[in-house]
Amino acid sequence: MHSALNKLVIIGVGLIGGSFALALRKANMVKQIIGVGRSPANMQKAIDQGVIDESTNDLASALNNADAVLLAMPVGQTLRIMADIEPHLQPDTVITDAGSTKQDVISAARLHLQKNLANFVPAHPIAGAEKSGVMAAQVDLFRNKHLVLTPLAETNHDAIERVKTLWQTCGANVTQMPADEHDRILAATSHLPHILAFALMNHLSQNTESNPDYLLRFAGSGFQDFTRIASSSPEMWRDICIANRDALNIQIEAYQKKLALFKEMLEENNTKELEEAFSHAQKTRDNWLKNNKVKQKKEER
Amino acid sequence: MHSALNKLVIIGVGLIGGSFALALRKANMVKQIIGVGRSPANMQKAIDQGVIDESTNDLASALNNADAVLLAMPVGQTLRIMADIEPHLQPDTVITDAGSTKQDVISAARLHLQKNLANFVPAHPIAGAEKSGVMAAQVDLFRNKHLVLTPLAETNHDAIERVKTLWQTCGANVTQMPADEHDRILAATSHLPHILAFALMNHLSQNTESNPDYLLRFAGSGFQDFTRIASSSPEMWRDICIANRDALNIQIEAYQKKLALFKEMLEENNTKELEEAFSHAQKTRDNWLKNNKVKQKKEER
Repeated sequence: MHSALNKLVIIGVGLIGGSFALALRKANMVKQIIGVGRSPANMQKAIDQGVIDESTNDLASALNNADAVLLAMPVGQTLRIMADIEPHLQPDTVITDAGSTKQDVISAARLHLQKNLANFVPAHPIAGAEKSGVMAAQVDLFRNKHLVLTPLAETNHDAIERVKTLWQTCGANVTQMPADEHDRILAATSHLPHILAFALMNHLSQNTESNPDYLLRFAGSGFQDFTRIASSSPEMWRDICIANRDALNIQIEAYQKKLALFKEMLEENNTKELEEAFSHAQKTRDNWLKNNKVKQKKEER
Repeated sequence: MHSALNKLVIIGVGLIGGSFALALRKANMVKQIIGVGRSPANMQKAIDQGVIDESTNDLASALNNADAVLLAMPVGQTLRIMADIEPHLQPDTVITDAGSTKQDVISAARLHLQKNLANFVPAHPIAGAEKSGVMAAQVDLFRNKHLVLTPLAETNHDAIERVKTLWQTCGANVTQMPADEHDRILAATSHLPHILAFALMNHLSQNTESNPDYLLRFAGSGFQDFTRIASSSPEMWRDICIANRDALNIQIEAYQKKLALFKEMLEENNTKELEEAFSHAQKTRDNWLKNNKVKQKKEER
């Protein structure tokens, strides 16, 4: 059992940072939470909502005697923030993050967190990325959600255990794996679907078979769910897709082949193979839903 | 204002047929509802739920003096059912259906409903196709949903008005268009997304980059929504995709080009174009949500 933190610093107090704060506070896992962020209005909201105790942009004072730091700002700022915090980190401060890709964060840490590499435990909570802002923070955002830790060869065991305890206290189901495996898996289950949804919206908005505005009037609830992830932040998804572009392109290429098979079945009027393929897809999904019952929201059927 | 129907016959009393019955009954739009279906157990449920008044497989007695017929059985049975009902149809019985593709239904009608072509008003309610069975029927399934009528050149005006009134009484927002236009539009907004979702599930279940079962453990709520339509009935979607395969393949081909563009942007590390493309997709979807506020379910953001 690890004792409560005296001081937690959250850099970037949005959906992820705010939810982390709320969950640890509810569990009495932390005495003081300091928020660091660019927008004074957002930081004031975070204080008003009881998410953080104090806000500052003075990293020296924020990090003084901090037990743990969560990096939860947009990933595009990772390099700069790491460089900014390094001079002020104490030897025993553990650092975790919440980025959707891990190899790029580790590369950044190798450049700018060199002195603290042993205390850096990269993390990816698989939860609610299409909402944003501290007002969207929820105490149970991470409850029963998967969280992947991708420690480096250099990360020390105690740091891993301390960070693991923090995320578990938030309710997350923690799995540890190498960063490259994480990035390959997420390319398939998350980054590829986002590309497919963005591509569908662009395809339909430039459709030549019918007037796009008129056409979209006849899109129903299946379409709404399918394209929900296309309402995600363009900036965030640009960064994720670029950071993981090699793994993502392997997935796109393999997917293109599957899609071409469907086109062939249709061209050949191959009803039997088409039904088998649909049936296999349906079974795969239904098994997935069944096996992941705990973490999934209830599905209306 | 059209007066209430004395007798409505529903062939296939599942989600669609049952919801049609419930809505018209609630509106006092029909005095007697006769159900026709293959499964005695299902028909008994429909009676027990108050969806239909009586069940029979004797088409002659069912259709005697019927004012209207809804064809709501699986579309694979269309040819046979049309041939079976034609000898028993009265000259003024109007017929509508609920199939997801329209040109194939019209071809079937030209073969087997020749004598009653003027009274046939093909319809497609854009609502809830991934649920099934009479127990899923809801009085408001069609409320604020789009319904497309695709009358033939031969369809008489009065039949169109009578059928339109029935669907409007169910709460549907009725639009009239040629069958080929309907099929092109639905290929883009519905059939293509289904193919994309089925293809993704198959791609992931046969992924070579990681163990598929392990990989799917890390799929989150975005993935769940994206793939919901891959849990749809394989038989039903086989029939829909085959019936509309030419229009669908045009959409797949155009989509493949869009997807290839994304792959190129990633290969070229073209962050600017990538962000613009994502941003365009996001705006298109957000505009669509805003403009279709009435019919869409509330979206958690």
